[in-house]
Amino acid sequence: MAAAAAIGGRARGLSAPNPNVGALIVSDGRIVGRGWCQPGGRPHAEAMALAEAGAKSRGATCYTTLEPCAHASPRGPACSALLIAAGVARVVGGMIDPDPRTAGAGYARLRAAGIAVTDGVLADVCAATMEGFLTRQRLGRPHVTLKLALSLDGCIALADGSSRWITGAAARAHAHVERARAEMIVVGRGTLTADAPRLDVRLDGLEGRSPRRAVLSRDPPPDGWEGLPAPAAIAALDGVDHLLVEGGAGAAAAFLAEDLVDRLLLYRAPIVIGDGRPAVDAIGLTDLSDAHGRWRLRDARALGSDRIEVYERQRS
Amino acid sequence: MAAAAAIGGRARGLSAPNPNVGALIVSDGRIVGRGWCQPGGRPHAEAMALAEAGAKSRGATCYTTLEPCAHASPRGPACSALLIAAGVARVVGGMIDPDPRTAGAGYARLRAAGIAVTDGVLADVCAATMEGFLTRQRLGRPHVTLKLALSLDGCIALADGSSRWITGAAARAHAHVERARAEMIVVGRGTLTADAPRLDVRLDGLEGRSPRRAVLSRDPPPDGWEGLPAPAAIAALDGVDHLLVEGGAGAAAAFLAEDLVDRLLLYRAPIVIGDGRPAVDAIGLTDLSDAHGRWRLRDARALGSDRIEVYERQRS
Ligand SMILES: NC(=O)c1ccc[n+]([C@@H]2O[C@H](COP(=O)([O-])OP(=O)(O)OC[C@H]3O[C@@H](n4cnc5c(N)ncnc54)[C@H](OP(=O)(O)O)[C@@H]3O)[C@@H](O)[C@H]2O)c1
Ligand SMILES: NC(=O)c1ccc[n+]([C@@H]2O[C@H](COP(=O)([O-])OP(=O)(O)OC[C@H]3O[C@@H](n4cnc5c(N)ncnc54)[C@H](OP(=O)(O)O)[C@@H]3O)[C@@H](O)[C@H]2O)c1
Repeated sequence: MAAAAAIGGRARGLSAPNPNVGALIVSDGRIVGRGWCQPGGRPHAEAMALAEAGAKSRGATCYTTLEPCAHASPRGPACSALLIAAGVARVVGGMIDPDPRTAGAGYARLRAAGIAVTDGVLADVCAATMEGFLTRQRLGRPHVTLKLALSLDGCIALADGSSRWITGAAARAHAHVERARAEMIVVGRGTLTADAPRLDVRLDGLEGRSPRRAVLSRDPPPDGWEGLPAPAAIAALDGVDHLLVEGGAGAAAAFLAEDLVDRLLLYRAPIVIGDGRPAVDAIGLTDLSDAHGRWRLRDARALGSDRIEVYERQRS
Repeated sequence: MAAAAAIGGRARGLSAPNPNVGALIVSDGRIVGRGWCQPGGRPHAEAMALAEAGAKSRGATCYTTLEPCAHASPRGPACSALLIAAGVARVVGGMIDPDPRTAGAGYARLRAAGIAVTDGVLADVCAATMEGFLTRQRLGRPHVTLKLALSLDGCIALADGSSRWITGAAARAHAHVERARAEMIVVGRGTLTADAPRLDVRLDGLEGRSPRRAVLSRDPPPDGWEGLPAPAAIAALDGVDHLLVEGGAGAAAAFLAEDLVDRLLLYRAPIVIGDGRPAVDAIGLTDLSDAHGRWRLRDARALGSDRIEVYERQRS
């Protein structure tokens, strides 16, 4: 299942509006088919894996990070039907599909056809790979990551606005990979004006993965940019399941104040700036106790001489 | 030697003006004497270890974190003379004593008496335990730690000044241990006025280890406080080898701007504050490239839901 989740991760940022499912067909202890949800959402992961496995699917086990879909669509047949037709003996799934058109109906159909079904295997791991899709299902909007490159004392720039460079090459390369994992990047109008950032993915082999770019501003966007008139407008974005907010302090605060940030991605350089630009403008906090219990550290690592920290929003 | 360094660490904050040396006497593979520099600096570690070992010192090995002293003083005999008199066969030392009255003369005296001498064993570890003494020898002032309790976005208080509490109980207890390891704590006058902090050690068994407390201010200090008219005044402090600066932003900046901080002790809570009080006021930085290459991470750990990070100033 961990391997299925890993190959599903390949489709992150590409498979919207469909979840970036990963699937494996295992026969006699060997992987005979691998699939991940293809760009634009079709074919589905199970369909791709079954196609690779061919006749070896018969009597095999299918591992899939998400319950196979129950609904046929004009764009293709239901995966549960494909699995039944291929004659698999067993399906091991990561989690039930929250899409109301499936929501347990996929598993029910498999069981009715005599296929053994196990659900909830590595559910956390599977959910983490599909957080964009799941956030859209649960909260009706894309999954939002706020990225900040900071000094130890929490500045994102000197007082004069200069921020090149706070972090080193390894941290910046990592941030480019994060760009490739989102469908859209947002900056505030202040950052657009100050830095004129390109926001593309400048990594060999990933040039084609540069996401759409948008500016948060009450004014219309310039040419080549999409406009976001308010943070809440992200709910209406088509084809965006993962949004990366790259600052500055005003944009960061705007998303945080409306509780629209799911993940903090902090790149921290071992430097002290002093009276620079603080990372986050006012978010309306008046009592320290309200600030606690919201964020949990998920990852902390060295990147060159910098450190990356990933915090996740805790929602009950 | 690691054990000798550990017992030397016990004397940190107590042994000034003398180094907090640790020493062991080992005979036939067994520890027969343990010593650490006593409060006020006498007896020295070697003298205490030899006293415990008694007749077993003859033919034994002495491990000591610092070269035994060569100079007799009115307060006691030279340790090199004591080791010779006790008949030890071998001395293993961590590092040469930078005090010009010894500076190699202790080892020379031992060798002249036929004792085998090895120096430089775990020198880094030994130096780290005696950083207060060594900083005074090298830079003519105490070793300075700047402690800050921060939010993820680098605030030390809300905009209204409230800072209770940013960090949790485990981080605050750790900070009290750090207090016990210093001879003096300093806060800026702004913090004294705003928070009226007691700055004592509120940990069971360590109540007696509360250090002297000082306020950084151009004005005279209030009753019960010592005054520091400027950061550079720390060089003249008697009996202070380890100084802990506990903020606020003005005091932090004053020490950083004069490059008088050797260690950053950051307690970071998993909270975002927004437009709070930044951790550090202006330090005179005008070019980002000047900020790099100064700090190196030495330690990073979880303390409850907070994290502690220790950065050390790199000096060539
Ligand atoms: N180190 C880093 O990670 C990093 C990253 C990015 C930027 N920076 C630095 O940050 C600085 C710029 O930050 P900044 O705070 O001045 O500007 P900013 O956050 O980039 O942009 C602020 C603008 O965002 C728009 N905005 C904010 N809240 C909004 C809301 N609720 N609804 C609609 N629009 C909203 C407003 O645009 P309108 O006024 O047009 O409505 C506002 O003027 C620069 O110095 C840049 O170098 C650093
Ligand atoms: N979270 C934490 O770790 C933490 C720790 C401490 C404080 N705080 C918060 O920080 C805030 C207070 O910070 P602050 O920046 O206002 O005040 P501060 O740093 O405590 O004190 C500033 C004062 O220090 C003196 N000073 C500064 N530079 C000096 C120099 N070069 N020579 C001599 N004296 C100098 C000046 O006193 P004179 O004007 O008298 O000359 C100045 O007014 C409070 O809200 C407090 O709660 C938070």
